Amino acid sequence: MKRSKKERQSLLTEQIADNPFVTDEQLAAEFNVSVQTIRLDRMELAIPELRERIKDVAAKKYDEVKSLPLDEVIGEIIDIELDNRAISIFDVGEEHVFQRNGIARGHHLFAQANSLAVAVIDDELALTVKSNVAFVKPVRAGNRVVTKAVVKGKNPDKNRTFIEVTSSVDNEVVFKGEFEMYRMKGEETT
Amino acid sequence: MKRSKKERQSLLTEQIADNPFVTDEQLAAEFNVSVQTIRLDRMELAIPELRERIKDVAAKKYDEVKSLPLDEVIGEIIDIELDNRAISIFDVGEEHVFQRNGIARGHHLFAQANSLAVAVIDDELALTVKSNVAFVKPVRAGNRVVTKAVVKGKNPDKNRTFIEVTSSVDNEVVFKGEFEMYRMKGEETT
Repeated sequence: MKRSKKERQSLLTEQIADNPFVTDEQLAAEFNVSVQTIRLDRMELAIPELRERIKDVAAKKYDEVKSLPLDEVIGEIIDIELDNRAISIFDVGEEHVFQRNGIARGHHLFAQANSLAVAVIDDELALTVKSNVAFVKPVRAGNRVVTKAVVKGKNPDKNRTFIEVTSSVDNEVVFKGEFEMYRMKGEETT
Repeated sequence: MKRSKKERQSLLTEQIADNPFVTDEQLAAEFNVSVQTIRLDRMELAIPELRERIKDVAAKKYDEVKSLPLDEVIGEIIDIELDNRAISIFDVGEEHVFQRNGIARGHHLFAQANSLAVAVIDDELALTVKSNVAFVKPVRAGNRVVTKAVVKGKNPDKNRTFIEVTSSVDNEVVFKGEFEMYRMKGEETT
């Protein structure tokens, strides 16, 4: 069903408000129009492009992180609920891969996951105690790694929080990790 | 027993040849002379200072590493026997610690350990499959982290090598890790 331009623009505004991370390509497919049409729609509606929208959301989310300052998070946090869950994205560049085989070095994926595990903690001090990680699939330059951290459990007596982290590229899991974190207080401050 | 200068200088030359990483302070204590005396001995004997000796050894050892180029190793490799064991040192700087609490960020210790686990593999391709790590004690700026990797086992059918890594500061363990590595051939090439 082909919609009128007015209808399409109204739905498009709603959808982007609902999910700021939807791409022009996805919108074009959904409305059965060209990507160029979506771009023109966005320009008329003054809706910034995806990259800008991500930055916007990231800037707002950063304010909520307690356990470390903005510039110490590896990747950009795009969603966070303290002591519950967090999502970050990390764009893999040439500087993150082995020269020889073009595969992303493990410690960059570990760094994104580990700093997200620190960031999700609702406390002023959070340190990693232990971590089990698996590098499931090779990641390459140009890949966008989407990492989700979920708080799975706590041991307040020992000031521990247990976090599961999963990283994906194009919805395929590339990395999994379990992080045991030490925190200052051991329970929510709220 | 106080030795003659000639005796001392002869023993000192031997000892440094034997262990290039001995410090002037250790030599001074052993020969029961001042650190200044040891420095003068080294100058007369044209033996470079510890930092230069480390660089020297590191440059030689790098030639032996197969699985990745020099500048991709995090830390300086000071000893390596391919497919058996390796040692690297990493000097923690202000840029490696959390601003807030001065504690070294986990991913830097992970990076040193992981890249040593890659370097020790006697193969052109080595990738990390899984890793279990424990951050045992906080590490701070100014600390020198000495990391040892030991090959513990292999599963040639699955092209796997199992490596144990231990990092210490002043002989106290600060980090432990087990790394399961994938390699191209699954057995020694020599």
